[in-house]
Amino acid sequence: MMNTMNLNSQSDSASPGIIKPLDPEEFKRQGYMMIDFVADYIRNIGNYPVLSEVEPGYLREKLPASAPSGPESIESILKDVQEHIIPGITHWQSPNYYGYFPSSGSIAGFMGEILSTGFNVVGFNWVSSPAATELENVVMDWLGQELKLPKTFLFEGHGGGVLLGTTCEAILCTLVAAREEKLTQFGRDNIGKLVVYGSDQTHSALQKAAKVAGIDPRNFRLIKTKRSNSFALSPDSLLSTILLDVKNGLIPCFLCATVGTTAMATVDPVGPLCKVAKEYGIWVHVDAAYAGSACICPEFRYCIDGVEEANSFSLNAHKWFLTNLACCCLWVKDRKALTKSLSENPEFLRNKASQSKKVVDYKDWQIPLSRKFNALKLWLVLRSYGVENLRNFLRNHVQMAKTFEGLMRLDKRFEVVVPRKFSLVCFRISPTAIASGLCNGSEACYSGKLMNDDYRVNEINRELLDLVNSSGNAFMTHGEVEGAFVIRCAIGSTLTEEHHVIMAWRLVQENANLLLGKTNCTSI
Amino acid sequence: MMNTMNLNSQSDSASPGIIKPLDPEEFKRQGYMMIDFVADYIRNIGNYPVLSEVEPGYLREKLPASAPSGPESIESILKDVQEHIIPGITHWQSPNYYGYFPSSGSIAGFMGEILSTGFNVVGFNWVSSPAATELENVVMDWLGQELKLPKTFLFEGHGGGVLLGTTCEAILCTLVAAREEKLTQFGRDNIGKLVVYGSDQTHSALQKAAKVAGIDPRNFRLIKTKRSNSFALSPDSLLSTILLDVKNGLIPCFLCATVGTTAMATVDPVGPLCKVAKEYGIWVHVDAAYAGSACICPEFRYCIDGVEEANSFSLNAHKWFLTNLACCCLWVKDRKALTKSLSENPEFLRNKASQSKKVVDYKDWQIPLSRKFNALKLWLVLRSYGVENLRNFLRNHVQMAKTFEGLMRLDKRFEVVVPRKFSLVCFRISPTAIASGLCNGSEACYSGKLMNDDYRVNEINRELLDLVNSSGNAFMTHGEVEGAFVIRCAIGSTLTEEHHVIMAWRLVQENANLLLGKTNCTSI
Repeated sequence: MMNTMNLNSQSDSASPGIIKPLDPEEFKRQGYMMIDFVADYIRNIGNYPVLSEVEPGYLREKLPASAPSGPESIESILKDVQEHIIPGITHWQSPNYYGYFPSSGSIAGFMGEILSTGFNVVGFNWVSSPAATELENVVMDWLGQELKLPKTFLFEGHGGGVLLGTTCEAILCTLVAAREEKLTQFGRDNIGKLVVYGSDQTHSALQKAAKVAGIDPRNFRLIKTKRSNSFALSPDSLLSTILLDVKNGLIPCFLCATVGTTAMATVDPVGPLCKVAKEYGIWVHVDAAYAGSACICPEFRYCIDGVEEANSFSLNAHKWFLTNLACCCLWVKDRKALTKSLSENPEFLRNKASQSKKVVDYKDWQIPLSRKFNALKLWLVLRSYGVENLRNFLRNHVQMAKTFEGLMRLDKRFEVVVPRKFSLVCFRISPTAIASGLCNGSEACYSGKLMNDDYRVNEINRELLDLVNSSGNAFMTHGEVEGAFVIRCAIGSTLTEEHHVIMAWRLVQENANLLLGKTNCTSI
Repeated sequence: MMNTMNLNSQSDSASPGIIKPLDPEEFKRQGYMMIDFVADYIRNIGNYPVLSEVEPGYLREKLPASAPSGPESIESILKDVQEHIIPGITHWQSPNYYGYFPSSGSIAGFMGEILSTGFNVVGFNWVSSPAATELENVVMDWLGQELKLPKTFLFEGHGGGVLLGTTCEAILCTLVAAREEKLTQFGRDNIGKLVVYGSDQTHSALQKAAKVAGIDPRNFRLIKTKRSNSFALSPDSLLSTILLDVKNGLIPCFLCATVGTTAMATVDPVGPLCKVAKEYGIWVHVDAAYAGSACICPEFRYCIDGVEEANSFSLNAHKWFLTNLACCCLWVKDRKALTKSLSENPEFLRNKASQSKKVVDYKDWQIPLSRKFNALKLWLVLRSYGVENLRNFLRNHVQMAKTFEGLMRLDKRFEVVVPRKFSLVCFRISPTAIASGLCNGSEACYSGKLMNDDYRVNEINRELLDLVNSSGNAFMTHGEVEGAFVIRCAIGSTLTEEHHVIMAWRLVQENANLLLGKTNCTSI
């Protein structure tokens, strides 16, 4: 360091009127205040209705029409957060949250985000912050090992892992890589012939990614699944769809197999699907957004058997792995396929480290250029809890889902629509219960349509879900299976304990009583 | 709320061996510790070499080969952060950071991120957390007003604003919207005919977005700019390029105009470019990633004159608006164009609020489905500092850049390569200084090539940049202008004060002395 300079002191001579937005003492004062605020929020979270009860447009009325010209105190801002923002939040961290899939925050995930926000480095390439890249290399290998991913998916092979924001990005990046391989092989004019495959249970992220990547919507296949097959994508159906496309002169390009679908946590048979796909040179991406985390437990690892034949694999650590938003983990078998299609090397980013080819430049593994130091939070989660505790934590959620399912099976009015997988229970009041006179003659049961027709059954279940959610004491969401409206209870919020789940079941049961009459109601 | 339930208490009866990752007391303990850690980091940041000095692969050697099976304490993790991570960081928050463009963090931006991380809500649609959507609507209107964007770009018109991660995403989203409009009009088989326009100064994000969106690389135009035109994209050049494309049966689709280019902060003439583009039905996106923030100052607003004729406009609040990463603000004139091309409506997301069409569902404004509550940090920045202070803060950076430029102009060995814009100074040791014997005969000046040839001039300037950066006392990066290697000093780090900038100039000058000999060196 040059000794003629004193670069370290922060001057007190800033011009009058110039704010000091990183003054360390003020940072501490506000930081403690904010930590207290969040701690209180967590402590009281069960007091808030899980689903926000506000009406559209509620907030604009409460806030000024324009930004303030002068500064306001953090105290007055926090008062507004408490009074105006918190009532407008649907509390994903509530122990009574069972909607969509969880976003399981944790202290470790939070602290990792604090560190990353404090450093505020932009790690687009190695040199812009070597630790951001190298820690990501390390933790992605760590997690890949715990998932027993084949070594080809790790940095010691030709693969490696990267942290993206969401599964949507993981699918888009891998789809673009697959598309570029095909266009290089068949010529760029054939973009209109490329075909993308999924099932009718695949997340809408695939359709969106295909659209963004310029795949002709006419060449997007959502292959029908069947109840007899637990709604998994059948390799035979895939094969016959491919054969028809090939016969029509189209070019099969990309398949998204899912481990833990959104509606019912269905597991597509990864190995057999890869076998079919491989014959036709199709890139297989395995989307294990929700259920992938469970695969660190030996008893669930079979769900991704065959992944060694896939080209890429992703899971969302922000869903069920205690890592605060957003943290999608993507591994690829051939990192060059990704970097070939996503790399741009403008002059301003040229540097010796990149030119040496000894480093990873993550800008070439993702859509955006800029990226935060996201590896910190995943590293903190793995270290703060340790793998064995993480396994037990996930198992505990699965056990709670079994409890919920077990209680439900004692009440004959309900049906568990598909066998429970992981920590998701899909259920409804059964058509039989409605048709066989267990209904108490409420308006819901008699309004205009035959009681046992599908529409009516759906409406009664929709009403049940509305009653549960409007109670404020739980929040669940819905799916659709072969035209049937199904209620989903996705257990996995960090704060959820067994007594919450038992309460949630009672809440469902009591509201079913209201809807159907109190006969045939077993109590626990 | 059902009074038969006590959902609020957190049970103490968790199974043995099950961790409690959101215990409020432990959250506070670790939270305070982490706030202290970040405060100390900020206090000491000037002590660290700005550019990390580690070698590729340094970190893997220091960390275990696999994740720990048991838990580790936050104290031991923080020790590792201090010893192993911080040396591997390039300190973007350092007052001596002048690389790329700044990532200006602040207390307000940090606190907003803490709140967002604490709530950890996923605001993909309105119902999933109404406040997340509505606050974003409000702050985007607030900031749009301060930028004097036309009302058509605000929610009161047919437009509106959205927070994305990066400009790359903003360009990709708007390009997909433009592409879909053209394909609807001309037929989907014409994707291979769509043309995208930028200049040779446009950020590489455009090329990447075009690639991702399936635009044929042969139809990607980087129109040459000229020094005589300050390297701005000339409407005449655009027109002649378009005419040739149209003559060849291609379909002009998308233009990215830049306000504040990466290399030299050049300002493309937005109004005249829009006029040309409009004739041919081209979507114009204005990328003001860096310089857009300055346009809240009346004296800089002229830089985006004509934006009312553009289709979309974006800036990165994480660059020069005190909002921690990542926070790109995108406004569009016709929100339906965006939502038409990016909307997917799977069953599991259907809800009454969305069906009412009274709410914004931001999932239809972006690539991914999931999104954090990012409006909080921008809201906190606007409120904590107030618009007038923010203006003065930016002006102060511009003033410091003038100081740096002024000092440099006193030393005849240097040339300011293009007139300074905003807070970026682009300079080099001039070919004249090198050719006219101001060189002291060092190896750098005589190794093999003629002193005054371009290669040699570039090498000497490259060497100067390396010396400056390896001192640890400043970090600058480079650009290229008509084959010339140019050093960029981008002032905008939150902690930078005038004395830092004066020191940075002395550092440049002293290293030039080393390289060129001490003659003709003016001192300040």
